[in-house]
Amino acid sequence: MSLTPEQLQEIDDLRANQQPTCRVTVPALEAILYQAVPLLDHGFVRVIDYMGDDGAIVQAARVSYGKGTQKTREDQGLINYLMRHRHTTPFEMCEIKFHVKLPIFVARQWIRHRMASVNEYSARYSILDREFYIPTPEQLGTQSSANRQGRGDVLEGEEAARVQQLLREDSERAYAHYTEMMNTDEEGNLLDPTRSGLARELARMNLSLNFYTQWYWKIDLHNLMHFISLRADPHAQYEIRVYADVLLDTLKHWVPMTHAAFRQYRMGGVHLSAEGMRVVRRMLAGEKPTQEETGLSAREWRELMAVLEENGEDA
Amino acid sequence: MSLTPEQLQEIDDLRANQQPTCRVTVPALEAILYQAVPLLDHGFVRVIDYMGDDGAIVQAARVSYGKGTQKTREDQGLINYLMRHRHTTPFEMCEIKFHVKLPIFVARQWIRHRMASVNEYSARYSILDREFYIPTPEQLGTQSSANRQGRGDVLEGEEAARVQQLLREDSERAYAHYTEMMNTDEEGNLLDPTRSGLARELARMNLSLNFYTQWYWKIDLHNLMHFISLRADPHAQYEIRVYADVLLDTLKHWVPMTHAAFRQYRMGGVHLSAEGMRVVRRMLAGEKPTQEETGLSAREWRELMAVLEENGEDA
Amino acid sequence: MSLTPEQLQEIDDLRANQQPTCRVTVPALEAILYQAVPLLDHGFVRVIDYMGDDGAIVQAARVSYGKGTQKTREDQGLINYLMRHRHTTPFEMCEIKFHVKLPIFVARQWIRHRMASVNEYSARYSILDREFYIPTPEQLGTQSSANRQGRGDVLEGEEAARVQQLLREDSERAYAHYTEMMNTDEEGNLLDPTRSGLARELARMNLSLNFYTQWYWKIDLHNLMHFISLRADPHAQYEIRVYADVLLDTLKHWVPMTHAAFRQYRMGGVHLSAEGMRVVRRMLAGEKPTQEETGLSAREWRELMAVLEENGEDA
Amino acid sequence: MSLTPEQLQEIDDLRANQQPTCRVTVPALEAILYQAVPLLDHGFVRVIDYMGDDGAIVQAARVSYGKGTQKTREDQGLINYLMRHRHTTPFEMCEIKFHVKLPIFVARQWIRHRMASVNEYSARYSILDREFYIPTPEQLGTQSSANRQGRGDVLEGEEAARVQQLLREDSERAYAHYTEMMNTDEEGNLLDPTRSGLARELARMNLSLNFYTQWYWKIDLHNLMHFISLRADPHAQYEIRVYADVLLDTLKHWVPMTHAAFRQYRMGGVHLSAEGMRVVRRMLAGEKPTQEETGLSAREWRELMAVLEENGEDA
Repeated sequence: MSLTPEQLQEIDDLRANQQPTCRVTVPALEAILYQAVPLLDHGFVRVIDYMGDDGAIVQAARVSYGKGTQKTREDQGLINYLMRHRHTTPFEMCEIKFHVKLPIFVARQWIRHRMASVNEYSARYSILDREFYIPTPEQLGTQSSANRQGRGDVLEGEEAARVQQLLREDSERAYAHYTEMMNTDEEGNLLDPTRSGLARELARMNLSLNFYTQWYWKIDLHNLMHFISLRADPHAQYEIRVYADVLLDTLKHWVPMTHAAFRQYRMGGVHLSAEGMRVVRRMLAGEKPTQEETGLSAREWRELMAVLEENGEDA
Repeated sequence: MSLTPEQLQEIDDLRANQQPTCRVTVPALEAILYQAVPLLDHGFVRVIDYMGDDGAIVQAARVSYGKGTQKTREDQGLINYLMRHRHTTPFEMCEIKFHVKLPIFVARQWIRHRMASVNEYSARYSILDREFYIPTPEQLGTQSSANRQGRGDVLEGEEAARVQQLLREDSERAYAHYTEMMNTDEEGNLLDPTRSGLARELARMNLSLNFYTQWYWKIDLHNLMHFISLRADPHAQYEIRVYADVLLDTLKHWVPMTHAAFRQYRMGGVHLSAEGMRVVRRMLAGEKPTQEETGLSAREWRELMAVLEENGEDA
Repeated sequence: MSLTPEQLQEIDDLRANQQPTCRVTVPALEAILYQAVPLLDHGFVRVIDYMGDDGAIVQAARVSYGKGTQKTREDQGLINYLMRHRHTTPFEMCEIKFHVKLPIFVARQWIRHRMASVNEYSARYSILDREFYIPTPEQLGTQSSANRQGRGDVLEGEEAARVQQLLREDSERAYAHYTEMMNTDEEGNLLDPTRSGLARELARMNLSLNFYTQWYWKIDLHNLMHFISLRADPHAQYEIRVYADVLLDTLKHWVPMTHAAFRQYRMGGVHLSAEGMRVVRRMLAGEKPTQEETGLSAREWRELMAVLEENGEDA
Repeated sequence: MSLTPEQLQEIDDLRANQQPTCRVTVPALEAILYQAVPLLDHGFVRVIDYMGDDGAIVQAARVSYGKGTQKTREDQGLINYLMRHRHTTPFEMCEIKFHVKLPIFVARQWIRHRMASVNEYSARYSILDREFYIPTPEQLGTQSSANRQGRGDVLEGEEAARVQQLLREDSERAYAHYTEMMNTDEEGNLLDPTRSGLARELARMNLSLNFYTQWYWKIDLHNLMHFISLRADPHAQYEIRVYADVLLDTLKHWVPMTHAAFRQYRMGGVHLSAEGMRVVRRMLAGEKPTQEETGLSAREWRELMAVLEENGEDA
C-alpha cells in the first residue's frame, strides 16, 4: 500500500470530522472508518460508509416503528432463525461501501458479483499508477494436479526467482511503454513536445493484468455474505481470498450477531447431498458402507469422509 | 381452470404449427408446449417458450464452439460438479417462459422473486374474470401453534362450511359491486346508459385477494431452481407449493440431468450447521450427546434428529 | 394516518437519540428523519435511514480518497454532466430506506420495481389492521375515453355516493369476516373458545385490494429517480403518484444538487423522436409542416405540438 | 478471426441439424445462426440461440393465449407505443445468446452491464490463445483535447509505427513468458520435464489487456437495447462500438419492428433538457436567444445548436 501524505491527510480529516446523527450508528465500525487495511503488495480495503446494524435487520423483519427488540438474546435468536431459514431480505436492509485497491485480474473475478454498485477509476480519463502485483515466493504455486483449477506445491529456488524476475521486468517495461506511447509521465506532464501522444483509452491496453486498479464498491449485507462465502472459500484464488477475509473481519465489527450466525450456519456449516445423508444414517446405524455400494463418486466420498472426520474446529 | 373454446383453439393452432429450427430443441418439452396444466380451482401453468437444454449448460461451462460433449456420462458428471460447487452461471444460460393463472395472494408471494421478467394482465386496462379461489375442505387449516407462520389441523364440519360460505359470498358480492361500479358487465358492455361508470383502475380495489390474475413469467434455470427450492419447500404455503411442484415437474421434461442433480444436491440435500456437524461427529464416534450439552436450541436439536432419523427416501 | 401513541413515542425516542458519526450527514434530511408524512386516508412515508449525499456522488465518480470537491459550482457541474450523459453508477452510491404504509393495489404496482429491497408486514404471521382506502369524491374518476388506461371526469352526486358506500360496506364486511374466520379480534385475542380458527395465511384472502399494508423499502438514488420519473408522471395512477411526489420532495432535502439536475434533465426534459426532431428543424427553418406530411401518428403529432407550445414552466 | 477447421466444422454441423419445433421461429435469424461475424483483428460475434420475436412482445403485452395480432400494422403500432412510453417489460420477454471473442479491455467495459448472464473462458483452468489486438493505423487516435475521455486526430508516420511496434513486441514477449512460466506450450504440452511450472491462475497475470478472451453472453431484448444505446453511441470507445454495431444489426434480423421503433424513438431521438426546450420554444416564436441569456452552459448550447441544425438524417 502506498498512500501519499496528501491522501493520508484527507483520511485523517474525514475521521476528525464528527457530526451528530439520529441514524443508527455502530461505534466499533466508526473506529475503523476510512482507514486503509493493507493487502498484497499495494492493495487495500477501506470502509467509506455504512447503513444499519444488527438491530436494523430485526426492525425490518418485524416492520416495526422503533428499533430492534434491544434484548440481545431475542435479536440473536431472530437473526439465527432468518439465517437458518434463508429469509434473506432483512439482511438486504444493511448496506456498506468500500474503497478497494486490487490487481486487475482480481477485479475481473470480483466484478462477476452483479448485485453491487461499482465506480472504477477510469483509465480512459486518467493515468494508472505504476503499481503492479508480484507474488511473494510462498505464493508461487504450481498448477494443481488434483484440481485443474488451482495451485499445488510452491515453486522452488531458481524457478521461483525466474518467475518473479519475468513478472517484474515485463511489468516495468509495460508501464514504461504505456507512458511513452501517451507521451506523458505518470503525472500527465508532456514528455516530447514534437509528438502527439496516443489516447489513454488505447495506451492502457499495454498494461498487464497484475496492475492495480481501484474502485468504490457498495453492496448490501445479504449479497456481501454471498460474496464472502464464495471468495473466502478454500477453493477461491488466494489473491481474492485475502480480500474476502478482510471483508469478513469487517462484518465482525459491523454486525456481530449476523457475523456469529453466518459463521455458525453458513461458513462453518456443511451441505450434504441426499446420498451423503443416506451414508451418514447408515453409519449412525452401525453399518460400514463403502464407496462402491453408494451412488457417490470417489471424489464425493473423499469429501464426505473428510467432513465427517474433521476435528470439529470452525473452518 | 376454465379456458374458453376460443382459447383452446388458439393453443391447438400453436401446437399444430411446427417449423424447422437449427436451435437446440427438447422433444419431451415440445410435447407439452402451450398446454395448460390445471391447478387449484381455476389456475394453470403453461410453458410458452424455452431456450437451451442440458447440453447448453455444458457448452457454456466450456465456452465451446459446438454442442455439449454428447457423452451422457460426462455431461451428467459436469452438471453434478457445477451444482455441488455452486457454479451457477452456466445454469443461467437456459431460459423458460410460462403463462400462469394464479390467485392474487399467491401472485404477491411469487413476485418477491425479482430475478425474472413479468407481464401481468392489467386491471387498469381490462376487466378481470369472475374467478376466485375457494380452498377445498382439506385445505382449511387452522393457525399452526408450533409455527406462527403456517397451518395446523384442518377445520371440521360446521366451521369449515361457514368459512367456505363466507369466502364465496364475499367474493360474489365483491365482483358484482366491481362491475356495478364500472357500469359494465364482464365483457365490458355498458349497463346503465345514464351513468358514467368508475374507472377500472379504481373499481378493481374492491376485489379480494383470492381473485385470479394471470401473467407471462420468464426466468433462467438458475433462478427457477432457486424459486422451486424455496416454494416447493414444506414450509411454503400450500397454494404456491402446488405451482412450484408443477415447475419442478417441467424441469424433469426440459433438463433431466439438471433435474437429477437438483434433487440429489439441493432439494434432497441437507444443510447442517457447524454445531450440528459437531454433534454428528460425536455420534459417529459412539458418544451420546444431549441437547443441553450442545449449542443447539431445542428446535434445532429436534430438526437435526429428524434429519438423521429419516428413512432415507428423497423428500 | 393513524399512528398509536406508542408508535409516536417510539419515533420521538429515535429522533431524540443523537450519536456522533464521522460518516457523511445531511442536516436537512436529519431534520425529518423517522417522521411520518401522511398520504391518502391512512398511508404514510417515513425516511428511516440514508447513506451519502451530493458529495458522495462526486467522490465516487472521481474514486477519490477524501470528499467531493467541496466547491459547490464544480460539484453541481459534474452532477449535471453525469445526469445528462447517463453515467448512472455514481448515483447508485447513495442509498435510502423508507417505511411506507400503502393500499395493496398500490403496493402491487410499486413492487414491479425490482431493483430495491423490501420487507413487507407478513399477513401469514400477523393480523392486518382494520384500515382500507376510500377515495375522496374528487378522486372518483370515470374510465377515460381518450386513454384506455386512466381516468376521465369525476363521478357526480348519487353515483359517487353509491361508489363510496359500496367500497366502505364491502371493506367493513370483509374485515369482519376476516377476523371471524380466524376466530380472533384485531389484537389476536381468541373470540370463541369452541372454535379452532382459520390460519391467517388463508383468512387474509378475504381482504380486498384497498386494505393497507406496510413495508420497509430500501433503494439506491439512481433507481429511486427511475421510480419517481415513472410514478410521478401524469400517466401514473393518482394513488401511487402522491407517494412518488413525497419521494421527490425527500430528494430535495437529501441531495439538492441531484434534485436540481433531475428536474432540469430528466423530469422537466422532453424526449423527441427522430421524426419529431425533423419536424422541429423544418419549423425552425420557417416551414409549416402538417401531420399528414410526416411519419407521425395523430397522437404523436398532438403530443409534439403540446410540448412545443407549453408555456415554458417546469412540469 | 481465426477459427480452426475443427471449429468451423462444429459450426457447420450445428447449422445442418434442423429439428421441428412449435416454438416461435425467426427465419431471418436462423439464416445466420452460429456463424461468426469477424470484428477487429481476431474478434467475432456469433448468435447461439434466441427466444421470441416481435409477436412475442405483443403477446406478452396483452397476456394473450395465442400469438400477437398477426396484423403487421397493429403490432408495429403497439410496439411503437411501448417504446415511446417506456413500457419495458414486454421487451424482456425476448432473449438472445451470443458467443463473443473480444479484447480483455473491451470485456472490462462490457461486463459493467449487470443485467445479463456470462460464462467466460477460464484462464485458471485453460490456456489462453496467442491472440492480441493491435489497432490499425487509422485507429491510433491521440488523446482528445475537447473531451478528456476520448480520441482526437490520428497519430502519423513514425509515431504510429512505433506504437504498433511496441504493442506487438510487448504482447509477443508477454505471451512467451506466460507459457515459459507455466512450462507448457500453447496446447498445454510440458516443455521442460525438470521444472514444475507456475499455476495458470498466476501466470495469466503477465498477459496484457489487449489479449483476447471469449464468453457466452445471454441478455433480454430490453437490456440489449440499453447496451446498444450506450455502446453504439459516438462517445463510446471505438473498440466496443464495433461490437455494438453488430448487435444492432442482429436486432434488425431478429425483431424488425422493434428495431424500427428503437431507431425512431431511442437511437435516433434526442433528449432536450427543460431549459433546452425553453430555447426551442423561443426560437419557434421568432426570438433569437443567445447562450448568455439562458441557463445553458457553453457546451450544452453547442450540443443543442448541433442537434437543431442536423440535416435530418438518422444517426
